[in-house]
Amino acid sequence: MRVVGIDPGLTRCGIGVVDVAADRSARLVHVAVLRTSPEQPLEQRLLALGRGLAAVLDEHVPAAFAIERVFAQHNLHTVMGIAQISGIALHLAAERGLSVGLHTPSEVKAAITGYGAADKRQVTAMVTRVLGLTEAPRPADAADALAIAICHAWRSAMTVPSADGPETPAQRVWRQAERAARSR
Amino acid sequence: MRVVGIDPGLTRCGIGVVDVAADRSARLVHVAVLRTSPEQPLEQRLLALGRGLAAVLDEHVPAAFAIERVFAQHNLHTVMGIAQISGIALHLAAERGLSVGLHTPSEVKAAITGYGAADKRQVTAMVTRVLGLTEAPRPADAADALAIAICHAWRSAMTVPSADGPETPAQRVWRQAERAARSR
Repeated sequence: MRVVGIDPGLTRCGIGVVDVAADRSARLVHVAVLRTSPEQPLEQRLLALGRGLAAVLDEHVPAAFAIERVFAQHNLHTVMGIAQISGIALHLAAERGLSVGLHTPSEVKAAITGYGAADKRQVTAMVTRVLGLTEAPRPADAADALAIAICHAWRSAMTVPSADGPETPAQRVWRQAERAARSR
Repeated sequence: MRVVGIDPGLTRCGIGVVDVAADRSARLVHVAVLRTSPEQPLEQRLLALGRGLAAVLDEHVPAAFAIERVFAQHNLHTVMGIAQISGIALHLAAERGLSVGLHTPSEVKAAITGYGAADKRQVTAMVTRVLGLTEAPRPADAADALAIAICHAWRSAMTVPSADGPETPAQRVWRQAERAARSR
């Protein structure tokens, strides 16, 4: 299953593409951080980011698309830009007929580390290990984009009955950790 | 000057196109309210609205594009959807090379009614009169989209020196009212 994950932002927008197999093993396909300058007009920043995201979708042709569910609890100044980019990204995904998953930050943390209140460092370390990378993806936006892509693949594998049979003991542990994180 | 104005929203998204002459007279070209159901997945709503907006831009070919500057002061549940649609609309405008204007609600009210704290009824009444319509545009989202388009044309005419000479006394009064509204 090829999944693209997006960590939306105007100044730095992370985009990560991973291939995830039925046994939960994951391989890095592509990761990038798109950047725009706060000195550019808003619409030019949105246009540049939209084009950058579209180029990655069209080059790597993922089947599924995952992005963080945006909450207004973030810094109110940056949340508007995050929501604007996420709107554009969701539109690009729907245009291409990708299946779309929205995940909360604690769902991503729980899926990746088994712990819904994990910190960024722990998430980055697990992403690095899961993908078998020799060094951690940088900046944090790159690791976050990969984390949400992996989270989406793993959660989809747990909720959609697999053609390979019932869930493994490891899958059951993840599902329970993830359910516990959600009920927090 | 042909201007498109957008009143962004997921459930109802107003879009209005007006032609505004150098003497500030304005003519209705097109007005519509695009709707999506809260039962649809978010990305399908965004896709439908994006397609609807693109169709109006491509049919009526405005030179300028105006939308409300989104603030987080709105209802926190709806502001995310508003920001997502506004991101898509701004992206569509930039893609087509339109000049873009962002205006605050009080700038729109001041430009249209001369009073930055005007209520929706007063704005709708002035839009109806300015466009010489026999009845008020409904629902409110349609009137709001037309109001921001007219606001943008009038404010542009005031800030960009006109080829027709210096500002008229009426323009000066509008500019002062508008400046007062902004400093509130």
